[in-house]
Amino acid sequence: MKVCVLGAGSWGTALAILMAGQGTQVALWHRREELVQQLKEDRENTKYLPGVELPSGILPTSQLDEAVRDSEVIILAVPSHSIRNICVQIKDFVHADQYVVNVAKGLEEGTHLRLSQVINDELPYNNVFVLTGPSHAEEVAKGLPTTVVISGEERESCECLQDLFTSPAFRVYTNPDMIGVELGGALKNIIALGAGISDGLGYGDNSKAALMTRGIAEISRLGKILGAKTETFAGLAGIGDLIVTCTSMHSRNRRAGILLGEGQRLDQVLDSIGMVVEGVRATKVARELSEKHGVEMPITNGLFKILFEDADPKDVVTEIMTRSNKHEMEEINSLYYYGWN
Amino acid sequence: MKVCVLGAGSWGTALAILMAGQGTQVALWHRREELVQQLKEDRENTKYLPGVELPSGILPTSQLDEAVRDSEVIILAVPSHSIRNICVQIKDFVHADQYVVNVAKGLEEGTHLRLSQVINDELPYNNVFVLTGPSHAEEVAKGLPTTVVISGEERESCECLQDLFTSPAFRVYTNPDMIGVELGGALKNIIALGAGISDGLGYGDNSKAALMTRGIAEISRLGKILGAKTETFAGLAGIGDLIVTCTSMHSRNRRAGILLGEGQRLDQVLDSIGMVVEGVRATKVARELSEKHGVEMPITNGLFKILFEDADPKDVVTEIMTRSNKHEMEEINSLYYYGWN
Repeated sequence: MKVCVLGAGSWGTALAILMAGQGTQVALWHRREELVQQLKEDRENTKYLPGVELPSGILPTSQLDEAVRDSEVIILAVPSHSIRNICVQIKDFVHADQYVVNVAKGLEEGTHLRLSQVINDELPYNNVFVLTGPSHAEEVAKGLPTTVVISGEERESCECLQDLFTSPAFRVYTNPDMIGVELGGALKNIIALGAGISDGLGYGDNSKAALMTRGIAEISRLGKILGAKTETFAGLAGIGDLIVTCTSMHSRNRRAGILLGEGQRLDQVLDSIGMVVEGVRATKVARELSEKHGVEMPITNGLFKILFEDADPKDVVTEIMTRSNKHEMEEINSLYYYGWN
Repeated sequence: MKVCVLGAGSWGTALAILMAGQGTQVALWHRREELVQQLKEDRENTKYLPGVELPSGILPTSQLDEAVRDSEVIILAVPSHSIRNICVQIKDFVHADQYVVNVAKGLEEGTHLRLSQVINDELPYNNVFVLTGPSHAEEVAKGLPTTVVISGEERESCECLQDLFTSPAFRVYTNPDMIGVELGGALKNIIALGAGISDGLGYGDNSKAALMTRGIAEISRLGKILGAKTETFAGLAGIGDLIVTCTSMHSRNRRAGILLGEGQRLDQVLDSIGMVVEGVRATKVARELSEKHGVEMPITNGLFKILFEDADPKDVVTEIMTRSNKHEMEEINSLYYYGWN
């Protein structure tokens, strides 16, 4: 099978290394000719994934049309806000029988579209898939055991891609719930921001576990309304990805949260992080969706107040903790509620 | 309301402090007169919960009959293997209208009974409840935000106990699924042991998140067969408690796992830990139950091989990772499977 990976950041490079290690021919495209030359000469992505050799099956290139034309599978590994743009760039030379696999996580600002919807907007004749789950690129590149989920509209093509990615250290599960799988990856950064705030406030393991568990519960509620299966949020694309993000020292969202919890204002925090903090935008989008659909999301709402209304994090925690008493399962949604009856 | 807490370990003491802080009269019983005298004199449990003052509403005592007779609610905070014994000791002076709340976690060896079943064996006329969730005693005693679950057979009495325990920093959710709530607490230590092994092998965040997510999935499968609701395992008594245990530096199970992952044998590990490692017994019980009921539990089985059959942890990981390809949701059980159809 011939494959191209569009985007030679850490995750795109790690996936190219994974597939090339299994004997697949991989064209690894990047828009900057300079980076491509460096990849060719050093056989290492010193900028985004240092310390790992590129196997000979990887062909770095800056020729988008060539990379795409020759491939049966096109993997989109650009940042989430560049997904529409890259689709526009390739739409003239894409064939309808090529599989398009998105590995970015996010929702489009303004439209609130999931990224597979953005892709289908631009490439309406292609079969679109999502690969997601708890997977730091550095660890995948080193061959440390990792599990992920692939989702798409047909079972057979998902199984075909499952085989493409699977290696002895990289286990791929299929899941037909594309909506849930995409929302899990996009919304988990809200909770990671909250986990950082909890740490910044000096709270303990109990608080963080509560935040993660109740956080995924409210994401499940929103997801259900948007057409997802709630079980997906209990799986690798939901709680699995959330665990990796909330426990990692590398997560920008968590680091931003810690500074907010320590009392800094959002503009100061964003200045000192100096990069995009996905959870900030995700909080805004999730709040808009929760209001539109009438879904109760106390943690997301609390975060919104901290981020955009200068609320004191401690007051927000007190407000969340002292709401009226609840039944744990009633909250997810009435379909899944089980009571004493 | 008058309450007694039987067992003045760290968790029993923390709960007594919590309730006394809300104005409840609490008799805190311990079998050793010496410890009781120390509690009375120092107004601090220096042995099990140092650094926190006992409020005046706590009355330490070694008189079991007095403590129990005067109370509307009896809280059992002894170790799980002592639950039957304490029930035998109090059965002659318990009244049927007293609520019995168990806060220990485990399954009875040999019988595989849940602790509420053990209690009902000895106290058949009492209403039995379970309080569980992600709650390190030290953090609760310090007033750090914590959420837990209470379960019991009737809604009204659960709500009454919800009010008893609730404070501004301690949020209690009700959940009618007693079986799931108890199994979550009892079986999570298996996965904590596995998480330690993963760390001991030098694996990363991806591996640990995979283990926790797929671990709770197989516990859910077993739980479902035993009458639990799978949603409970996605909640505070399931993944919530698991997160706290797997990320804590205090967990004996995790520490034991690290040593196993580093290549030590079980007997060496138990010698160097020097205390009960609950996950070891839980692995044995879960494996017996999985064989009896025909439930696939690859992680539990792998752990069993490491613990009792001298298998090399690395070989076990390879075996688990290279099983035949799976659909993520199909595995939980057929009732919850959603497919492409």
